[in-house]
Amino acid sequence: MKQTVAIIGAGETGAGWAARFRVMGWDVRLFDPDDMARGLVGAVLQQARRGLPGLSDVALPETGDMVFCQTISEAVDGAVWIQECLPERLELKRKVFQKIQEHCDRRAVIASSTGTFTLAELQGCATRPEQIIAAHAIAPIYLLPLVELAVNDVNSPEVTARAKEVLQGIGMAPVDQQGEERVSVALQNALQTEADRLIAEGMATADDISDVLRYGLGLRWAASGLDASQDAVLVAMLRALKAQDAGAGAVLNRFDATQAEPVLDIKQPLPTVTRTVPLDWTDYNGHMNEVRYLQAFGDATDRFMEIIGCDADYIASGGSYFTVETHIRHLDEVHAGARIRVETQCLLGEGKKMHLFHRMYEGDRLLATGEHMLIHVSLDTRRATVPADHIAARLGQIATAHAALDLPDGAGRAVGEDR
Amino acid sequence: MKQTVAIIGAGETGAGWAARFRVMGWDVRLFDPDDMARGLVGAVLQQARRGLPGLSDVALPETGDMVFCQTISEAVDGAVWIQECLPERLELKRKVFQKIQEHCDRRAVIASSTGTFTLAELQGCATRPEQIIAAHAIAPIYLLPLVELAVNDVNSPEVTARAKEVLQGIGMAPVDQQGEERVSVALQNALQTEADRLIAEGMATADDISDVLRYGLGLRWAASGLDASQDAVLVAMLRALKAQDAGAGAVLNRFDATQAEPVLDIKQPLPTVTRTVPLDWTDYNGHMNEVRYLQAFGDATDRFMEIIGCDADYIASGGSYFTVETHIRHLDEVHAGARIRVETQCLLGEGKKMHLFHRMYEGDRLLATGEHMLIHVSLDTRRATVPADHIAARLGQIATAHAALDLPDGAGRAVGEDR
Repeated sequence: MKQTVAIIGAGETGAGWAARFRVMGWDVRLFDPDDMARGLVGAVLQQARRGLPGLSDVALPETGDMVFCQTISEAVDGAVWIQECLPERLELKRKVFQKIQEHCDRRAVIASSTGTFTLAELQGCATRPEQIIAAHAIAPIYLLPLVELAVNDVNSPEVTARAKEVLQGIGMAPVDQQGEERVSVALQNALQTEADRLIAEGMATADDISDVLRYGLGLRWAASGLDASQDAVLVAMLRALKAQDAGAGAVLNRFDATQAEPVLDIKQPLPTVTRTVPLDWTDYNGHMNEVRYLQAFGDATDRFMEIIGCDADYIASGGSYFTVETHIRHLDEVHAGARIRVETQCLLGEGKKMHLFHRMYEGDRLLATGEHMLIHVSLDTRRATVPADHIAARLGQIATAHAALDLPDGAGRAVGEDR
Repeated sequence: MKQTVAIIGAGETGAGWAARFRVMGWDVRLFDPDDMARGLVGAVLQQARRGLPGLSDVALPETGDMVFCQTISEAVDGAVWIQECLPERLELKRKVFQKIQEHCDRRAVIASSTGTFTLAELQGCATRPEQIIAAHAIAPIYLLPLVELAVNDVNSPEVTARAKEVLQGIGMAPVDQQGEERVSVALQNALQTEADRLIAEGMATADDISDVLRYGLGLRWAASGLDASQDAVLVAMLRALKAQDAGAGAVLNRFDATQAEPVLDIKQPLPTVTRTVPLDWTDYNGHMNEVRYLQAFGDATDRFMEIIGCDADYIASGGSYFTVETHIRHLDEVHAGARIRVETQCLLGEGKKMHLFHRMYEGDRLLATGEHMLIHVSLDTRRATVPADHIAARLGQIATAHAALDLPDGAGRAVGEDR
């Protein structure tokens, strides 16, 4: 059965909590005296819907309902969790806690988002202080799992257990607050204070400081906190950033762009990929995962497209090739650190069609073949169209030259066919 | 032509620099009075060879040669870059700079790895101070691109330009040092000091602090320094960590494990994947990338394997299935945030063979099919063998039940065959 959360105060923090609870399947009741809050909540919810469910490799529950309420009493009606997200003014919070407790269920958990006040201060004037805890998260609350959880002797063990259960149930990782300070606030302030000092003393610009974090320190801290990081974890993060062309990943892309490309002889299969198998491409079987074979073949197809003129500029102008069919044969294993290369033979290149055959090698050892049918499309209509003349001409040249080559072993095969 | 670097002092720092230069194609000449250094250098080099080349999506130059030299004069002979990696003792460094300058090329760059001394201090007693700069990197030097570069008025513009060129040429991102302090050292000290205070005052344990960094702050700093992070970048990093089961990614995996699995009716195709398309699964064509279709089909295969008992424990005991052949038809597009599901039909399951057919849907819309032949193998011999009895039995049950289903449309197809 769906559970209900009340969010009191729908600024950035309230919107973030509302979005996380709702995407995780909770019904959400919001109260904010400012009608403008609706726009912000809608925008944050849209972000959360794009980002959060994809973090899971399983299906999340159906998204819950959301209601904007006119009063606090209406908002907390039926709520088993009440998240207070008001401005950091103690008297305001205390007044609202009293109001909440006039109307809410005695068994509900009331969690404050405060990054400033101690739990004892928050409980100070409450009717039932045992119901009040603090749960402090950082933006974007709908993506980052961190939540600092403060409970004390006034809370019952049931409230404490229930708080952890709810927070874990919405995908968060509660970190128990040991004292009165929020660790995230203290660390962030310490770093910001030092950054301000370095800037004031002319030791660094704000950009320099961001670079030092993005290219080095932040990666280590994200991978493993204050402990030494594992290479595979750093490599995986760096490669994720590379795919986004962000942070340290943008440095890697700039480096790649400086490396020389092989000379092309169009009478032979074209060298379209030469690379090393990354640490994060291996799987539980101890070898390169099947998905990464297709990733290398996909890169080979991208490179072939570039060679015939279907590059980033052309794609931006509205034309591209879509893969409609793929056949892969896995012939031999390969491991992290091995240098692999892909050679690409064009089996057909006329009209809307492009039929490619990739062979992947480590040295002379044939590891896999990939056969792909691609169709040229208009990115506006998403329908098949013929490519621009210069692309048709270049593709035609290569297809004609490759027609003189032998048909590769394995081309035209169906899965499970006798060899 | 290959260039030569001399590394003076082969502790952790020297070994890291040596490994990066060598993997990036430089010939390396090492000097360290301690013969034990060789073991460390060998170990670090092995790590670097596994991790660094895979960060590039293109081939790196051939790995350079490496020589351990008996004297500094031998080490710097022919070197165009000399990286000093000695213990942080100013008099020692100054003495060694004099020794280096007796023998090295006048045009070579001499870079100190110091995190402590100012450049003016290092240049103090040198014969040719204009040749000396500071280049400070953080571990693992062979993976992280950060390098803080200090030059001053004593250096010629040629030395400064050459320093940037060399550092970028080995894949690093030089951050110009504006004053006498190293920003990375200052920030790291500030964070460590605050962490020590929090621990001393009982506000947090060391583990709490690491959790706050791994689950929240570190991710933001790694993504974008002190600026606001983009969701797509955070999602990509979180998913990379998830694949490694590390940091915040381990939280996501624990959450997934708590979600209910669908009930199985083996008379019908089995539900093997239900998930949302993540933000980082889309590509330059604006839709889910072809590689991610196979990723979802690969996950479906993994789940099917689990259903028949080929789970993590069984794989640890030395048996598994390898995919030998794959055929994918892309029938329709799908975008980030969409909920997709895969249903799996077993076409054959006897002896060493397992022939699966996956259908991927968004709602009723068929997006793609994946046909896969898998062979059961021994992970010791890497050769085909029959599976354990309980797996053969469960697979047989499903195969028999599915034999009553229609052969799916598209099964047995070869690429480009007429429809």
